[in-house]
Amino acid sequence: MEQKVMNQSIMSALEKFNELDEKISHFNSILGLLSWDQKVISPKKGRSIFANANGTLRTEAFKLTVSEEMGEALSTLSTPEAEEYLDEAMKAKVRERLKFYNRSKSIPAAMIKDFSVLTSRANDAWEEARENNDFGKYLPYLEKIVEFKRKAVEIYGYENHPYDALLDEFEPGLTVEKLDPLFVKLRESSADLLRRIQESSYKPSVEIFEQPYSVEKQKEFNRYILPLIGFDMEAGRLDETVHPFAQPVNTRDVRITTRYLENNVRSAIFGTIHEAGHGIYEQNINPEFQDTVLQEGASFGIHESQSRFLENMVGRSEEFWKYFYPKLQEHFPEQLGKVGLDDFYRATNAVQPSFVRVEADELTYNLHIMVRYEIEKL
Amino acid sequence: MEQKVMNQSIMSALEKFNELDEKISHFNSILGLLSWDQKVISPKKGRSIFANANGTLRTEAFKLTVSEEMGEALSTLSTPEAEEYLDEAMKAKVRERLKFYNRSKSIPAAMIKDFSVLTSRANDAWEEARENNDFGKYLPYLEKIVEFKRKAVEIYGYENHPYDALLDEFEPGLTVEKLDPLFVKLRESSADLLRRIQESSYKPSVEIFEQPYSVEKQKEFNRYILPLIGFDMEAGRLDETVHPFAQPVNTRDVRITTRYLENNVRSAIFGTIHEAGHGIYEQNINPEFQDTVLQEGASFGIHESQSRFLENMVGRSEEFWKYFYPKLQEHFPEQLGKVGLDDFYRATNAVQPSFVRVEADELTYNLHIMVRYEIEKL
Repeated sequence: MEQKVMNQSIMSALEKFNELDEKISHFNSILGLLSWDQKVISPKKGRSIFANANGTLRTEAFKLTVSEEMGEALSTLSTPEAEEYLDEAMKAKVRERLKFYNRSKSIPAAMIKDFSVLTSRANDAWEEARENNDFGKYLPYLEKIVEFKRKAVEIYGYENHPYDALLDEFEPGLTVEKLDPLFVKLRESSADLLRRIQESSYKPSVEIFEQPYSVEKQKEFNRYILPLIGFDMEAGRLDETVHPFAQPVNTRDVRITTRYLENNVRSAIFGTIHEAGHGIYEQNINPEFQDTVLQEGASFGIHESQSRFLENMVGRSEEFWKYFYPKLQEHFPEQLGKVGLDDFYRATNAVQPSFVRVEADELTYNLHIMVRYEIEKL
Repeated sequence: MEQKVMNQSIMSALEKFNELDEKISHFNSILGLLSWDQKVISPKKGRSIFANANGTLRTEAFKLTVSEEMGEALSTLSTPEAEEYLDEAMKAKVRERLKFYNRSKSIPAAMIKDFSVLTSRANDAWEEARENNDFGKYLPYLEKIVEFKRKAVEIYGYENHPYDALLDEFEPGLTVEKLDPLFVKLRESSADLLRRIQESSYKPSVEIFEQPYSVEKQKEFNRYILPLIGFDMEAGRLDETVHPFAQPVNTRDVRITTRYLENNVRSAIFGTIHEAGHGIYEQNINPEFQDTVLQEGASFGIHESQSRFLENMVGRSEEFWKYFYPKLQEHFPEQLGKVGLDDFYRATNAVQPSFVRVEADELTYNLHIMVRYEIEKL
């Protein structure tokens, strides 16, 4: 059997690539932690100062991904000759970095920094605007973000629709051309199903969720279910934020958040299960991919497939509640002691159009996504 | 009046210096946050992975401080000709960076990275060893740290005593030659005072501290005093750790920790006041120095002057407790309701040799420091 000997230029390109890939991945891991910190735990007055430090690191990471060194290593490693020496994982790393390189190499680093500082501050402004129910406070940030994105679209370039340039970030390869017909079909059948549900005389009694539920007891219950559905609490955290999210730092440090509403016990439970879906996915990424471009989830679509599967297929199933409902009743005997499993289970599957995506039911959630898509496409 | 015009080379050195100084300061601000996160809040399993990312950033920051670019800018800016154009703050920035540059330029970057990863992991090992009362688990880390430090001493160089090379990090310009006689005098008079205290028939009744004090109530009391002694809670946090510390992220984000012992109400109170002393100092650094080498406290000595002044001169004074004792009694009516202010105040000033520095009294604290000094000097 012939043993292939890697030539010198491929070998040194590989070495350079791994060095850069590791450094970028380390920086991204740190940026993940910083983003979590600033949203969840940082003192208010320090955030706008910290936004600058954060922007500096983000810019450094960006510069490395589009650096000349990276470009040279990538062009050597993506030749058919080099690919013969690379295993599947290595090929995937090169492919992912190359995609980002080609996509982003024309974006000026200063734009990345400005955008980073802007979005850090925008999150603060959003929280304040939300608290005071004052959209005007957030509007200038939103306008600037949209302006930035439009500029980015022109730099990224696109074949058919400008939004394709941004869609690709969420779901590689997806285009308006593919998505529009899919959404038309989904919208029609969803609207039809929604109409039939609304006309039905059967209404699950969702009022059971809207009694006063102690937030402390809710926290206890959410912490109780997490390890049982597969989220490793020693490799992650559960915290509280206005807008629930999941943030990986590394495969053994995945942080999720939820929100507790005193008068809505559903919100935290399904929010937590949803974010746990994201978290469990990240906790189970092959540890060999740690500190490489493959260290995080593959795409938004894959991610939501995990979170929504856990939330809806598992978390709203009768089997799930057969096990967990008695425990929930123990936590809230006054509120649920007299509500039967069947009534509870049906209520968790009730469909009600609302304005808040993160609390939407299984059916109208999709409609929220479509509205968002239509707005972003504009 | 003659207007001085800066020549081109000074101007561009200044520009380069400010650019590098800002980037390093941003990285240090991030490193501060990361260090806090890993000690206070990160999930256990992720820490040893994160140590690598942390080490990468620390190494980047280090490389910039000893980079050729920095060296060139510093050599231009530290000429008498250039200094004419610099204001006091700018001169101080150049002086501080130059000191670090000269001191560290011979340290290999790989050594910084290894040391960073080692100390991250050592902290974990220390916590575990402490929990299991098993010094053997920590020993290998300690040995490696000492080995590293000895290597660093040889690289830094020294005139008289090897420990001078390390002392300079804590207190610029301080040497064994200066410190030894100072400590001899302090030790003698401290030992004498301690002997007289131990022989005295008057013993404040410290048992009042050793009743069961609810940790929740302790937390409440500590949070109550912090803003009143000048710590801005919107520009900082108070958390709980095994070993109390203060960590600045920036002047508006200063994080302190304390520890609560159910059977020792003193520990958290004086620990919190001590760390608040560090924190208030950092919160009051001139905001114009933010994102420069001057953004953090000047030295360990200056820092402890703040923390120990607040702890001992303020926190153990009769005036302090005249105001705060009624509030403490409100929190703990069962434990302190019948203890008078005078007895309480005297008990807070009781002197008792112990093995734990962070809980030592005003007098024996110094002896702890001297023991530590003697060990480190070896």
